[in-house]
Amino acid sequence: MRESDLLTHIYRRSAALAAEYPRVILGPGDDCAEIRTGPATLLTVDQLIEGRHYFPDTPLDLIARKAVARSVSDLAAMAGRPVWSLATAALPHGFEQARADELFDRLHHWSRHWGCPLVGGDIAALPAGAPAVLTVTVGGDPHPVRGAVRRSGARAGDAIWMTGRCGGSLPSGRHLTFEPRVHEAEWLAEALRSDLHAMIDLSDGLGRDAARVALASGVRLEIEAALIPLHAPASPTAAQDGEDYELLFAAAPNAALPDLCPATRTPLTRIGRVVAGAGCVIIDAAGRLWDTTELGWEHA
Amino acid sequence: MRESDLLTHIYRRSAALAAEYPRVILGPGDDCAEIRTGPATLLTVDQLIEGRHYFPDTPLDLIARKAVARSVSDLAAMAGRPVWSLATAALPHGFEQARADELFDRLHHWSRHWGCPLVGGDIAALPAGAPAVLTVTVGGDPHPVRGAVRRSGARAGDAIWMTGRCGGSLPSGRHLTFEPRVHEAEWLAEALRSDLHAMIDLSDGLGRDAARVALASGVRLEIEAALIPLHAPASPTAAQDGEDYELLFAAAPNAALPDLCPATRTPLTRIGRVVAGAGCVIIDAAGRLWDTTELGWEHA
Repeated sequence: MRESDLLTHIYRRSAALAAEYPRVILGPGDDCAEIRTGPATLLTVDQLIEGRHYFPDTPLDLIARKAVARSVSDLAAMAGRPVWSLATAALPHGFEQARADELFDRLHHWSRHWGCPLVGGDIAALPAGAPAVLTVTVGGDPHPVRGAVRRSGARAGDAIWMTGRCGGSLPSGRHLTFEPRVHEAEWLAEALRSDLHAMIDLSDGLGRDAARVALASGVRLEIEAALIPLHAPASPTAAQDGEDYELLFAAAPNAALPDLCPATRTPLTRIGRVVAGAGCVIIDAAGRLWDTTELGWEHA
Repeated sequence: MRESDLLTHIYRRSAALAAEYPRVILGPGDDCAEIRTGPATLLTVDQLIEGRHYFPDTPLDLIARKAVARSVSDLAAMAGRPVWSLATAALPHGFEQARADELFDRLHHWSRHWGCPLVGGDIAALPAGAPAVLTVTVGGDPHPVRGAVRRSGARAGDAIWMTGRCGGSLPSGRHLTFEPRVHEAEWLAEALRSDLHAMIDLSDGLGRDAARVALASGVRLEIEAALIPLHAPASPTAAQDGEDYELLFAAAPNAALPDLCPATRTPLTRIGRVVAGAGCVIIDAAGRLWDTTELGWEHA
């Protein structure tokens, strides 16, 4: 394909994107994209690396899905709404042009699926044999009433909740097909308003991510192992497997929540509490404390 | 270093960044950064790959500088002002932690240098021997009066101008030390307002990038080889070397510009014109036409 034909194709696609998405002023094909923004913008970027975040034989559709979903999950963790995305791909020599085109088609598909159309990107070549390296940047709006929900707002007395279930994300393949909790986060922000104190997405394991909320908030989190909802069959270390992409949040103690998020039927489960102090412990059925402050948590 | 010590360090640094930059609501350390934005935001992302964009023995300071400068140059090409940045690094196993820290310190330094502090990022490991892959995303404000200057606004009758000089960027090392033309672009937008019709930065060679303006604008660009300002000693193919990161722009024919941009003393040179038609040619001293529409331009 001649460069002029390729650029003409990009310009047409870009004009169609701007016509479909009122927030997109200028899509791909110029030196920058241009987006209509509100008073504040949430920003995140994540990498997806072949052999580390997915096996080399993973279908391109699922690679693209996970690359976008990981960054969308970071927006959800702040109760934000994704609006736009940018993607890069560094692909080894020998990665066929048709497959590169398919990869970007799927990145376009999944970014639109979560409301944040791909407005720009870059593709570059690596030596043969190097692992593919993808990045996805996502930007979006904080909740218009609640604002961005940080990790740092948990207070002694709060209840700790989580969406969904954890465990076994890698062996089950859920790490490729999980649904970022954008709707659940927005619903929580609407329902709880200023009673939604802190939130994080569970990417590195419940114990480790909960410890990050404790550190950022200057409090102590106590989680009860028996309350953690697990996927069946759960591995013995389910709560520290990571890559669950569920939300863990701290809410005012009197905040009442249903068992399921109304629109999506995602479970909402109270799993612990916030107390004065520092660090994070998971308390097992025998009353033993498992400190997760510095490490992932090894479920007994 | 324990994770809690590292995170405490990041939180302190992040709070200092927000105190220094009023546009930064929330810096690194949470699931997303949060930035104060105006009615529109310009966005670009670029990759920098070891062995392709820099030699492996390049100092980390210059690697970081080029990674940030390439994306800042894309903002300049729209006459935008950089406001924030995000960076990722995929580094091969064996890349020492101290060097990774230094790389991010230099990314922080250069992003601040151009007014777009690093508000987030990600670091990941590649197998030993794989080339390092960096990405920098930059966002910023379009010019408040002129708005974003696209590639697509050139009109028949316009004059074609460029900033600075081209040629020899790679052998001279200028590809590592170039100054993105942010101030020049802002000055042009102020001075020319609606007479500044189209602009692009010269990353892939003057001929090839000028052809992109022609295609996007639906016009023909005619550039006179004898007028192209070259770095001395200029290679015979100086105008197609690429990596000059100068600006090429189309202005109304009656627009008067000084020889030098007032604040920075960067040369401003009229090198051609826009006519009805399609494609781009460079006209040499003998009157021969070199068509650059589909390729870089081979200087005679």
